[in-house]
Amino acid sequence: MQQHHEFLLIHGSWHTGACWRHVEAVLQANGHKTHAITLPGHGDGATDVSLEKYVQAIVDYVDAAALDKFVLVGHSAGGTIVCKAAEKLGDTIARLVLISPLLAKDGEALTQAVPPAYADLFAQMAAANDNNQIMVPWEVWRDSFIGDASEEVARAAFDELCPEPFGPLTEAVDLSKFAQLPIAKSYIRCMEDVVFPVGEFGLFPRMYEQIAPCRLVNVQGSHELMYSNPDALADALIKAGRA
Amino acid sequence: MQQHHEFLLIHGSWHTGACWRHVEAVLQANGHKTHAITLPGHGDGATDVSLEKYVQAIVDYVDAAALDKFVLVGHSAGGTIVCKAAEKLGDTIARLVLISPLLAKDGEALTQAVPPAYADLFAQMAAANDNNQIMVPWEVWRDSFIGDASEEVARAAFDELCPEPFGPLTEAVDLSKFAQLPIAKSYIRCMEDVVFPVGEFGLFPRMYEQIAPCRLVNVQGSHELMYSNPDALADALIKAGRA
Amino acid sequence: MQQHHEFLLIHGSWHTGACWRHVEAVLQANGHKTHAITLPGHGDGATDVSLEKYVQAIVDYVDAAALDKFVLVGHSAGGTIVCKAAEKLGDTIARLVLISPLLAKDGEALTQAVPPAYADLFAQMAAANDNNQIMVPWEVWRDSFIGDASEEVARAAFDELCPEPFGPLTEAVDLSKFAQLPIAKSYIRCMEDVVFPVGEFGLFPRMYEQIAPCRLVNVQGSHELMYSNPDALADALIKAGRA
Repeated sequence: MQQHHEFLLIHGSWHTGACWRHVEAVLQANGHKTHAITLPGHGDGATDVSLEKYVQAIVDYVDAAALDKFVLVGHSAGGTIVCKAAEKLGDTIARLVLISPLLAKDGEALTQAVPPAYADLFAQMAAANDNNQIMVPWEVWRDSFIGDASEEVARAAFDELCPEPFGPLTEAVDLSKFAQLPIAKSYIRCMEDVVFPVGEFGLFPRMYEQIAPCRLVNVQGSHELMYSNPDALADALIKAGRA
Repeated sequence: MQQHHEFLLIHGSWHTGACWRHVEAVLQANGHKTHAITLPGHGDGATDVSLEKYVQAIVDYVDAAALDKFVLVGHSAGGTIVCKAAEKLGDTIARLVLISPLLAKDGEALTQAVPPAYADLFAQMAAANDNNQIMVPWEVWRDSFIGDASEEVARAAFDELCPEPFGPLTEAVDLSKFAQLPIAKSYIRCMEDVVFPVGEFGLFPRMYEQIAPCRLVNVQGSHELMYSNPDALADALIKAGRA
Repeated sequence: MQQHHEFLLIHGSWHTGACWRHVEAVLQANGHKTHAITLPGHGDGATDVSLEKYVQAIVDYVDAAALDKFVLVGHSAGGTIVCKAAEKLGDTIARLVLISPLLAKDGEALTQAVPPAYADLFAQMAAANDNNQIMVPWEVWRDSFIGDASEEVARAAFDELCPEPFGPLTEAVDLSKFAQLPIAKSYIRCMEDVVFPVGEFGLFPRMYEQIAPCRLVNVQGSHELMYSNPDALADALIKAGRA
């Protein structure tokens, strides 16, 4: 007998909560409840954002919706944000699920978790516009983020992206409490994820090692399965989310 | 035309020969013959066991059943045991198949092949009971051993486990003859196996490198496919076992 | 709507253009155009070959067939050859696709890209015959090259192989222009490829890192998917080749 879960889905850089709609449809069709929020500064024009405001947006939503024993899901840079949120939410969370997460080390910033050349590029991009924002270029998006999709799907997803506030990515994150939390964790590995080149700076297994021991769920496809293969991602979420 | 093989299946720590029953059913339904034995000290209460007694149990079974040109399969710590048995069985074995094996290096003990923190934990566990036995805790079993199963399957499999004699895991193993054996080998990699955290101490590719060159067969799933997906493991065994 | 592409397929060591025939049939059945040539010295008895002659054979074919905006595919050692050819062909190529490639570093020879023990073995083999040729032994072919095939398929494919001229593998390759080419690239990773033992000298991710950033397409199976699973390889080529 399949268990039914309640998922709260937190997006990563350049995305909004709308990125999950295809995955939510599949999860709901399988009897699960889903929630997705958009973090401040993502599509709303706000520029005075911070990691603390990201985390507070999650906590506020959980309180308002009175969620309990739910599965908290973070994608990419959203992975660090849900880890930080877990410090405040504690055992309200049934399990934490990280999809191809970008995880800051305790006391470090997210920019320290990306390959140095990328961090430099981001800093240059942010400095070059008035809003301290960064954006992923199409060529990088096409082959490194969503190489498993058709060009049409890749283009349509790209058109949904929004500029990302750079500030929060440069904030040192205190994750000392999180490291002590006795919270069950699952890691969804997207097997064709090459957001960072596989090898020294590849997401896997570098990020997995930071959070192990935790359940590992593999799924074929790129970093952007919510667009390229929402059925496969929903299936992985169900396996990752169960008790 | 598919070849039919005869498999002798050797379990790993905490298991008995009964762990293979679902896999055996699939193999037999596909026309293959199967055998599975339980190593001494696994469920029979015996505590005066050793690597030599494990190996002798295999040799005795092969002699009694007059097996010839069979596929010898070892799972996890059973991998080291079948390598040692191969030294005595020689070309009676058609091919050696190792499933997510834990392989001691020549002259070292199995405890030297596990992450140091795990070896320490095992030693403390063994010292804490009268029978020098160790047992895998439920939380570790659930997410690190069998994360791909439903909670029900994971729980039922856990209820079948038995305490493991710690002594044999601490014996130095002489594998100098094995290294010279011209025996065909296959390695079944369980893609979601995180018994040891992926990375420096992960089973793959660390164990594969010790035994290469050998055939590699990938199968999705955890360390405990005999419970979580016996069909997939049987399929992998057929591919791994053929000439 | 699926795009249709035109593929030019370049084989690796010991193969001829005929190795692609099963893959070509699948690609053509899906509406794609295909071309495959045999490099000089592969089955024709020629021994005065060089990397330059390999590259020229590709350029000559492209000119004669007036190919434009085609997908240039290189397998194994053919990967280095298509990279070098790309320097001459420029934006006539729509995308470069590398299947389990063996890539020389700029200024180095292919023999420097293989594990040192293999390079020594090749040199000894070449010195031991009048034609400075090398050949892959059956046992290595069976388990390290094509472990995913039945014995019958493995044997039939082996019977099609031809001795490989060793000279070109020892030539230093100038790839300085290639490194500057703004050409779209895809890398097809064969998940069970153990031509070189996984780990320090494994093809992946070592070769991927040399060519990143580029699209990654995973496909189950060995180095020799054109024989063991041409349907899967054709599917991967379609995903790898699209814009």
